[in-house]
Amino acid sequence: MANWEPPSVDRSCYPRGFRAAGITCGIKQSGRPDLALIVSDRLSHAASLFTQNRAAAAPVVVSRRHGRRGVRAIIASSGNANACTGERGERDALSMCEQAARAIGAASDEVMVCSTGVIGVALPIERIAAGIPRVVEALTPTGWEAAADAICTTDAFRKMAGCHWSVGGRDARLIGMAKGAGMIHPNMATMLAFLATDACVEPSLLQGVLRAAARDTFHSISVDGDQSTNDTLILLANGEAGNNPIAPATEEARRFETAVREVCGELARMLVRDGEGATKLVTLEVSGARSDDEARQAARAVANSVLVKMAFLGEDANWGRIVAALGAAGVELRLDSCSIGFDGIRVLDTGRLVDADQARLAALLKKPEFTVAIDLGTGGSGHATFWTCDISDEYVRFNAHYRT
Amino acid sequence: MANWEPPSVDRSCYPRGFRAAGITCGIKQSGRPDLALIVSDRLSHAASLFTQNRAAAAPVVVSRRHGRRGVRAIIASSGNANACTGERGERDALSMCEQAARAIGAASDEVMVCSTGVIGVALPIERIAAGIPRVVEALTPTGWEAAADAICTTDAFRKMAGCHWSVGGRDARLIGMAKGAGMIHPNMATMLAFLATDACVEPSLLQGVLRAAARDTFHSISVDGDQSTNDTLILLANGEAGNNPIAPATEEARRFETAVREVCGELARMLVRDGEGATKLVTLEVSGARSDDEARQAARAVANSVLVKMAFLGEDANWGRIVAALGAAGVELRLDSCSIGFDGIRVLDTGRLVDADQARLAALLKKPEFTVAIDLGTGGSGHATFWTCDISDEYVRFNAHYRT
Repeated sequence: MANWEPPSVDRSCYPRGFRAAGITCGIKQSGRPDLALIVSDRLSHAASLFTQNRAAAAPVVVSRRHGRRGVRAIIASSGNANACTGERGERDALSMCEQAARAIGAASDEVMVCSTGVIGVALPIERIAAGIPRVVEALTPTGWEAAADAICTTDAFRKMAGCHWSVGGRDARLIGMAKGAGMIHPNMATMLAFLATDACVEPSLLQGVLRAAARDTFHSISVDGDQSTNDTLILLANGEAGNNPIAPATEEARRFETAVREVCGELARMLVRDGEGATKLVTLEVSGARSDDEARQAARAVANSVLVKMAFLGEDANWGRIVAALGAAGVELRLDSCSIGFDGIRVLDTGRLVDADQARLAALLKKPEFTVAIDLGTGGSGHATFWTCDISDEYVRFNAHYRT
Repeated sequence: MANWEPPSVDRSCYPRGFRAAGITCGIKQSGRPDLALIVSDRLSHAASLFTQNRAAAAPVVVSRRHGRRGVRAIIASSGNANACTGERGERDALSMCEQAARAIGAASDEVMVCSTGVIGVALPIERIAAGIPRVVEALTPTGWEAAADAICTTDAFRKMAGCHWSVGGRDARLIGMAKGAGMIHPNMATMLAFLATDACVEPSLLQGVLRAAARDTFHSISVDGDQSTNDTLILLANGEAGNNPIAPATEEARRFETAVREVCGELARMLVRDGEGATKLVTLEVSGARSDDEARQAARAVANSVLVKMAFLGEDANWGRIVAALGAAGVELRLDSCSIGFDGIRVLDTGRLVDADQARLAALLKKPEFTVAIDLGTGGSGHATFWTCDISDEYVRFNAHYRT
């Protein structure tokens, strides 16, 4: 997206007791980095979320079984998704875990594995096997950017975010990296995101925090509505900060959740901004729903509507398409008390068409980022925030003619 | 769509005891026909299906209440959808029924009303009121083409289909007309389809026949996945053929159902062919599902996938995107026994990648119409046929910049 620079992450956010690296092992013809490794010096607590797609790729199948007793490492390759590759695919994914485990002195089920890239082609496993000792060699406490680069496929920019905060007098650090799904390169099907913190967190808290953060961030963005076979989100917490373990339902748990949500949110918005050919980042604020779930469902329907995306591209305040998408969302909608506004300019007010200032509206819609506020009119307090982008001519060119 | 000519309907399909007309009453700035009327000389049995959209337009709200005792007429206007127009919209829709009823000597609840066009603008009801006596004046037994023209918005061609068949020694006739939804002109939101037959049909049979036919035709096409506020499908049967009433669960019922399904199918495929900027009509044949419903659900997921549509545009046999869409469809899928073929050329065979003849595949995908056969691999006998089209650069241009 034009006129937007990805922020760099300060090294003060790099968590202690982790090392990372990214190298070129030869999966990608381009010679760009394609093998990433993140290692925790000691066994780390872990939470993870995987694609719901029934055609889940081999690394997802393997990683789902791993990490039960904790995680020492994440090995990730890019350029080939190892998806729809049958039994051989699973053997290859498992072999990546085994080799990484051997090289760092861990058990193979303490290693998570991820791949992203083309579907239906067997992994060049011998190149990866040759690369694993080299990526282990390259590990450093500051290797996060190299790792973030090595999970990219056609991403236009590296996606990293981080923060640090104080917990029980100790400084805790959190870093995250992601690569995009959908628009960025749909056949390179995957959203991968890895977070690592040195905070000490009770394992019972970890999965819930990740799930809640993902719901409000990675699950609240729309690029093209398609769901990948490889989507994986992993959060590691190794406790190196030395704080007393953060327990559920405490003020410290709340602050930890805020940190995770913040980093996930930054990464998620970067994914939308990096939509191939996207020209707009549109924030949807849905209120007046019967529940937060219904608000999110309504927002998703609007965000995924091809016609609404087209209207954004056309810089057209086409609220009729928004209403039609809301009506089809399967949630309670009171048309006679529904309101819609673009960055504070109401176009529909409690069911009545507003004679909005068309010149102001036109100027607003030319901006690369704006908000659409929608009140479903049920009188309920359900609310959701969602991020979407437009579909552009460039997207069509890119995706239609990618393989040919 | 290039190189395709809509067939004309032989007058031998025009049902007896009906008259139709289409005129210009001044809703459209272009001066093209915008008011259609279909009248049955006597009270006709009727079946109808309406949009499930919760933002249903005023004519849908009114027509849902009408026709309980039978239908004498359908009054339909184009150029303005009378959607999101609140109480005034309902008054206007009701007033169209009242005026048409008065002019033909019927009760107002014997008249169905439909509108299609822009959303959120009040109907120019005085122009319609002035037009109604003129469209009644214009009624003739052969006025079907004029009526079909007058329900179009930006449709590239008139959509009509018809057939006749023998029932109990009598010749029964069926005619249908439609205007398209979605791609054709998304802001002109609507799929309208009207069918009229002179067969005598028991009322208890009529709704079930229409519902089953719609499921396999109008509900089995995808243009852009968006759902309109105005979709309406009406079937009238006035009995003028003089046959003994067709009763449920008879051979004659089966033949009637075939006729309705045939006409609906022809109209539905015309809607896909008329997709603005569409270059491909793709038939999806899904088999090996646990049930017909699951097969249809899987087909719909593939048909609506933006990425799959892009691959069709790019003439790319990108089965990876198809598998990803199937995996996200929420139906049982056995990846290790799944098969996918393009017009008989297998690319995935019981879970294994086939080294298909790329030259043959490339030639096939250049055709304006082809079939994608998908076996979900569950071993079940569930099956569905679905029609979809691509999304082209022209579609993006057309829909993004339509109002601006």
